[in-house]
Amino acid sequence: MIITMAHGSGGAFTSELIDKIFVKEFDNETVKELEDCAVIPGSKKIAMTTDSFVVKPIEYPGGDIGRLCICGTVNDLLMRGAKAKYITCGFIIEEGANSETLKRIVHSMAETAKEAGVIIVAGDTKVIDGNGGIMINTAGVGFVEEGLDISSRNLTPGDLVILSGNLGDHHATILGSRMNITNSIKSDNAPLTDIVSNLLKEKINIHTMRDVTRGGLATVLTELSRSSRVDIKLEEDKIPVSNAVRDFCGLLGLDPLYMGNEGKCIIVVPKNEAGKALEVIRNSKYGENAVIIGEVKEMAEDKACVYIETEIGGKRILDVLQDEGLPRIC
Amino acid sequence: MIITMAHGSGGAFTSELIDKIFVKEFDNETVKELEDCAVIPGSKKIAMTTDSFVVKPIEYPGGDIGRLCICGTVNDLLMRGAKAKYITCGFIIEEGANSETLKRIVHSMAETAKEAGVIIVAGDTKVIDGNGGIMINTAGVGFVEEGLDISSRNLTPGDLVILSGNLGDHHATILGSRMNITNSIKSDNAPLTDIVSNLLKEKINIHTMRDVTRGGLATVLTELSRSSRVDIKLEEDKIPVSNAVRDFCGLLGLDPLYMGNEGKCIIVVPKNEAGKALEVIRNSKYGENAVIIGEVKEMAEDKACVYIETEIGGKRILDVLQDEGLPRIC
Repeated sequence: MIITMAHGSGGAFTSELIDKIFVKEFDNETVKELEDCAVIPGSKKIAMTTDSFVVKPIEYPGGDIGRLCICGTVNDLLMRGAKAKYITCGFIIEEGANSETLKRIVHSMAETAKEAGVIIVAGDTKVIDGNGGIMINTAGVGFVEEGLDISSRNLTPGDLVILSGNLGDHHATILGSRMNITNSIKSDNAPLTDIVSNLLKEKINIHTMRDVTRGGLATVLTELSRSSRVDIKLEEDKIPVSNAVRDFCGLLGLDPLYMGNEGKCIIVVPKNEAGKALEVIRNSKYGENAVIIGEVKEMAEDKACVYIETEIGGKRILDVLQDEGLPRIC
Repeated sequence: MIITMAHGSGGAFTSELIDKIFVKEFDNETVKELEDCAVIPGSKKIAMTTDSFVVKPIEYPGGDIGRLCICGTVNDLLMRGAKAKYITCGFIIEEGANSETLKRIVHSMAETAKEAGVIIVAGDTKVIDGNGGIMINTAGVGFVEEGLDISSRNLTPGDLVILSGNLGDHHATILGSRMNITNSIKSDNAPLTDIVSNLLKEKINIHTMRDVTRGGLATVLTELSRSSRVDIKLEEDKIPVSNAVRDFCGLLGLDPLYMGNEGKCIIVVPKNEAGKALEVIRNSKYGENAVIIGEVKEMAEDKACVYIETEIGGKRILDVLQDEGLPRIC
């Protein structure tokens, strides 16, 4: 079936799309109620986030926009120490999209939601003119335990910075797909639920967590250093990049430090807890390649920065991404 | 400033856009934290909803996509009896958009959020190729009082149906704008906060509320009748339509019963409370033209329906909208 403007009318065709594709896959009591708004159990302290996903192509090695949107929203909740609970999704579908493609995407969302332990409770569908593309906005709500304070303001000199795994896979996958390059690289899109829940279960004193998405590690760490007014010293040779991604970067002149990821995060903990934290992360799903990549330092100059020590003892200061990066990477 | 792909990179240009346009307008402590996820006070029972807005043109008589997206999401929360509290917004901006337009839209969102009593706590920005258009997804969270149960399943024979005001204004505005017709019609886009909070304050036993958006009154009431397995008898001559909209409809052969609105709702209450409810609504902002338009009846046939009694005593059965309606009306 080809999706037409009539599927965005709010009438009979919209109902058909909702029943046959969305409700069937997002099979839960709340979504079956078909209300415009879900009423669900709450919690004293909640976390709330949103992301729009406009990735092109919408299906790529290792994932698709459906898996991506659930992971992206779940990971943003997790990074504040929240237990991810509820997801809403808004579909913007370009006229001409094939309902079979939409079904695959929606099935992938449902599977990823199950893996991440979240329920899709409400949605919306709009159809616009275009060339059969699909964009998805997801918003998420999670519950935060009383007393937990994980934020970008908590970096403290002496803390160690753990990276949960290899850099660059998602970025290289999307770019490779657009260039029709065939290789072994797959997107890392994954929910970081297991890593975070295990760290919280072990009562690790997490100061800061952040998923390393658009803008890459350098941008994310620079933003954190500015928020906490500290410097971060990185050990460049510790930063894990797979051989396939390293080759791809070499070929195209890309820097893994500025490449987007969709299943990687940094976790910052006090030095005396770093060993245990690393062990917990390495024993968690999607955390097996975790390493300590740097240390938080007192701010040396007027402006907080992230730097790498050069071989002759100088500092190479990293900055946030300055140019356009890779459009429509997520 | 013209918005380019670089503003969607997640790097320095994205930061600039966020600081100069979004944070400045959505001036609150949570948004200033610039985290990927907001942590905010919760409640035992919450309501959650989402909508994407793709209306064209994005600015029209009486409103714009910014006012529309806040009203749409707030109203969906209110219709379940929730106190609307938090909003997230995801912007999908087409390359070539003018930042001055974006500023006006964002300012309008901020003003409407103030009017509706909600806080914008998190956001996201993506840039895609295109012709300078702007699409916005909003998601909302509200708090629901324990014991309150307002849903589409609660229509009971004998209940009366109140419509909060005139039909067709938003639909006629958007269509008129596209056809370059100059007249006095303005969109009704408005938050229904005052109506709902006054009804709850007066402890009116609301069975069902629903905003009358895409698909129009006939579609919305038919969906409700099916959810509750009841019939609804409408008094066609009671349904309020302004003279300007009536003329516009006559000219173009439109039926106000299928036209989209963005600041109107139906409220269904037991007969013995309808008089008081109507008085409360008429004394509330955006409710001054409210009228009782129909009554809930036992289901007469196998299938629930909405009908109008004809002059000779027959039944004209209304159905949900069958065709495409007006594309990109919201």
